[in-house]
Amino acid sequence: MRYQKPKGTQDFIPGIVEKWQYVEKKARDWCHRFNYKEIRTPIFEQTELFIRSVGETTDVVEKEMYTFKDKGDRNMTLRPEGTAGVVRAYIENKLYGEPDIQKLYYIGPKFRYEQPQSGRFRQFHQFGVEVFGSIDPAIDAEVISLGYSFFKDLGLQGVKVELNSIGNQQSRTNYRGKLQEFLTPVKEQLCKDCQSRFERNPLRILDCKKDQQYFDGAPSILDSLDEESMIHFDKVQKYLAEMDIKFEINPRMVRGLDYYTDTVFEYKAEGIGAIDTIAAGGRYNGLVEQIGGQDQPGVGFGIGLERVLLILDHQNVQIPEENLLDVYLVGLGEQAEEKCVKVLYELRQAGIKAEKDYLGKKMKAQLKSADRQKVKYAAILGDEELERGEIVLKILESREQKTIALENFVEEMLKITKGGNM
Amino acid sequence: MRYQKPKGTQDFIPGIVEKWQYVEKKARDWCHRFNYKEIRTPIFEQTELFIRSVGETTDVVEKEMYTFKDKGDRNMTLRPEGTAGVVRAYIENKLYGEPDIQKLYYIGPKFRYEQPQSGRFRQFHQFGVEVFGSIDPAIDAEVISLGYSFFKDLGLQGVKVELNSIGNQQSRTNYRGKLQEFLTPVKEQLCKDCQSRFERNPLRILDCKKDQQYFDGAPSILDSLDEESMIHFDKVQKYLAEMDIKFEINPRMVRGLDYYTDTVFEYKAEGIGAIDTIAAGGRYNGLVEQIGGQDQPGVGFGIGLERVLLILDHQNVQIPEENLLDVYLVGLGEQAEEKCVKVLYELRQAGIKAEKDYLGKKMKAQLKSADRQKVKYAAILGDEELERGEIVLKILESREQKTIALENFVEEMLKITKGGNM
Repeated sequence: MRYQKPKGTQDFIPGIVEKWQYVEKKARDWCHRFNYKEIRTPIFEQTELFIRSVGETTDVVEKEMYTFKDKGDRNMTLRPEGTAGVVRAYIENKLYGEPDIQKLYYIGPKFRYEQPQSGRFRQFHQFGVEVFGSIDPAIDAEVISLGYSFFKDLGLQGVKVELNSIGNQQSRTNYRGKLQEFLTPVKEQLCKDCQSRFERNPLRILDCKKDQQYFDGAPSILDSLDEESMIHFDKVQKYLAEMDIKFEINPRMVRGLDYYTDTVFEYKAEGIGAIDTIAAGGRYNGLVEQIGGQDQPGVGFGIGLERVLLILDHQNVQIPEENLLDVYLVGLGEQAEEKCVKVLYELRQAGIKAEKDYLGKKMKAQLKSADRQKVKYAAILGDEELERGEIVLKILESREQKTIALENFVEEMLKITKGGNM
Repeated sequence: MRYQKPKGTQDFIPGIVEKWQYVEKKARDWCHRFNYKEIRTPIFEQTELFIRSVGETTDVVEKEMYTFKDKGDRNMTLRPEGTAGVVRAYIENKLYGEPDIQKLYYIGPKFRYEQPQSGRFRQFHQFGVEVFGSIDPAIDAEVISLGYSFFKDLGLQGVKVELNSIGNQQSRTNYRGKLQEFLTPVKEQLCKDCQSRFERNPLRILDCKKDQQYFDGAPSILDSLDEESMIHFDKVQKYLAEMDIKFEINPRMVRGLDYYTDTVFEYKAEGIGAIDTIAAGGRYNGLVEQIGGQDQPGVGFGIGLERVLLILDHQNVQIPEENLLDVYLVGLGEQAEEKCVKVLYELRQAGIKAEKDYLGKKMKAQLKSADRQKVKYAAILGDEELERGEIVLKILESREQKTIALENFVEEMLKITKGGNM
């Protein structure tokens, strides 16, 4: 084989792609019920946009971006996450000028140069939502409930939400000091990454998978919240409880991206081995202003679809087969086969999913092909039938059959496939 | 404004994105009727793949590719067209090993560093199909008829197909000689690009927009076809005529890509000013082997969706509005507004597209918001109604209204929105 797909990327071929179509359709359906509109932003953006929004000291920006110079010598980066581009588009297209808030969703590829492993790819795919313009805690709850509805509807088992509030800039600054104070005695034992985060970004130390043993008794960020943040957080919880959404509070969860404020959350499900994080999100009230727009609050989530599909698979969730063929046309003899081309076209024009052979197969092989494609009906047209102006319709499962006038065939097939029986 | 989208790219924002959703849905629907399955390949591939398949002397490869080195020092290119990646995936995933032919479609972004102009972007979007494994002329006709059906269904005016056959390698070599002989006397008058193509790729001279005045009386490639290609081409025409597809033969059309053999075609429509080419395709019998696979024939087309949308717009084709809201919940008073959050969630769980206000607007402003969103029903819940366990449903157009028990509200809304009247 001379050419291979780039390392860490995937081909979605027939047999697999249908799962993606199904999951994406669910995502769209839920977004439309919740009145979210799609937004599509370019695959690449100015590098600076991601540095500014995702944060200079994050792993994404420091290590994982696909950055290149275009032929005009501009620094461009394949988008490593979804929010920055949407915020940029929100500002550039003046969507803040609308009298209503903006409720947006996106589905599409993202790119991070990471070591590929199970469920983690260099080109991966996210479904996300972003809401701009409201500080109402009901909208935090709405965003959380949208993702929750999507996961439940897919049939995922054990879905629940972990919730936290990291407050505003001021409460984070206060907490930062308390946390550094608490960590100082164990600073030398922390991993190298955490030691380097100690000054730059100490909150993110709590995310570290290696150092959890040092965090017992660490101060809770919830104790540093001001009254406004407390009220906001209480209301979010109240709404979630009213919607019967399973959630618990995790004061250790601070999320890896710099732009969050107040509400942060993760979705968990029964995963491979233990409980897995399947998606995450939060509020980001300062981000729009930070990257050059008006001061408009925001809240959203991003769901990695590779991970969702992996867990669906692991939980043995069946995905219904859609778009199956209605009828397979079997042509026998030169005249009849040529006629089939026309009949096939007419069937399709009428909205019937129809197929024929293009390999000059014999009748038996054509019927086998029909079986493989799980089609319910085969229609047999030989030169003899053609002469009599007839076609033979066969139910493949029962081998029942009847003869139909060729000129009425499309009409009959419409009745049968839309009506349900022969 | 601090950040802007990269030059030559677009944001598809609400109000515009719905057109894209509509056109893509039509494309998918037609593919499923014709029994084509989706394939998705990575956004970037090894650069070498495109050089090898698109052709070293093409404008695409010479000037327009987004090529970069990844962090592993590999040369990668954002895909400039759709066929190469699909062929690579067909080979790598051994799709040739299936007992039936492979009928594939794709929809997604492509990238060419060109000068942006009306309808031409650096990130553009294509819908395409590729069929592997059959040399039956009926499959050429099927591919052509699929694109034709899609365009007609969109409501495009004046759609027709231009058709040609450029034969096999041998007939092209013969024709190449004849064409060079014919062009020799005017060689010095041809444009610079054409002079450089004279030895490397003389067939593509016929594509030149500047030099058409020198081509009167040029030999026709159809006179160089061998018998097999002639028969194939005749049958394609016969099938198209039987399907009532408007086509005409254009012996000058040779297409810009190197990999075509036998059938080549373009779709035309009433465009801006004159008749425009809206899409193109052809057969490529040698390509799979050329890039390292078994010798399997192929045929397909690629449709630039920016151009389709531009012409739909220009022809004033109306695109139906879909996914409109069913009901807008108007909450008045703190208790009632909080209750609305829960009712809203229940409506959505029942499959009803529902919305409320998240800006603390007064009643009048909320009703205005409902109007803007073209919703048919508003449901008003004040603290008084809440106390009585009621909600007031209003048809916005007629201002007709009725009071419903709050506990029956979701059920009633289901009847109204799915049944059609109040």
